[in-house]
Amino acid sequence: MSNVKTLASCIFCKIVKGEIPCFKLLETDSILAFMDIGPIARGHCLVIPKYHAAKLTDLPDDQMGDILPALAKIAKAAGNENYNVLQNNGRPAHQQVDHVHFHYIPKPSADDKEGLGVGWPAQNLPMDEIKKIYEEVKAKLA
Amino acid sequence: MSNVKTLASCIFCKIVKGEIPCFKLLETDSILAFMDIGPIARGHCLVIPKYHAAKLTDLPDDQMGDILPALAKIAKAAGNENYNVLQNNGRPAHQQVDHVHFHYIPKPSADDKEGLGVGWPAQNLPMDEIKKIYEEVKAKLA
Repeated sequence: MSNVKTLASCIFCKIVKGEIPCFKLLETDSILAFMDIGPIARGHCLVIPKYHAAKLTDLPDDQMGDILPALAKIAKAAGNENYNVLQNNGRPAHQQVDHVHFHYIPKPSADDKEGLGVGWPAQNLPMDEIKKIYEEVKAKLA
Repeated sequence: MSNVKTLASCIFCKIVKGEIPCFKLLETDSILAFMDIGPIARGHCLVIPKYHAAKLTDLPDDQMGDILPALAKIAKAAGNENYNVLQNNGRPAHQQVDHVHFHYIPKPSADDKEGLGVGWPAQNLPMDEIKKIYEEVKAKLA
């Protein structure tokens, strides 16, 4: 692996370093992909950057390049027609391990028994309210 | 924009081509980021590849490079501590527009009123069953 930042106490860094075993699917200089051992669907797996970053906003751009190609490669191999890619940031957003990880989760049917359950609380914001939020974010991007 | 594959009937391709307006946050040769006008949280936005692909598995690797950096850039500008990144593939997996799109969804609190609701149906698979699935996927990756 390349010389990346790791955190001794992090379970995913321990997997990256080989201190904890995993069912390894893919490895590049910057990412590792392995089975999730607490799956919510058959074939549920994870793609993580080797670089230790708690949230996506903590991960340098140059550590991101292999993540989506790895997810696509796994999704093609797994062969599920329907699937979700999910990356959670923070406890309220359902993140359990504080090292960036992308879930690949097959969705074999629309029911709630297997795969990601998606709750979608439409906010019904008026367009001028969306525009106002847009202008706030856009100003910070400039 | 670069010369990418588009689909005349696709609403996101129409946004890419400027035929439908959007609240544009970011644009590169390969991606566009804009506000979701049916938000489930204040600040909910989308990052899409300009290249028309229905699912992540249909998108060429060389069209993926700007997606995660754009999401991180927007997340930093938006400034929400907690957020989800979600990319759905197929109707059972909650995909509504058949052009790859990554949701950036702020999660202001753990309740279900705003932001992504996450259902997590643990499958409680025995380790030897996970190993069997692993071996099947790994064989197809080889």
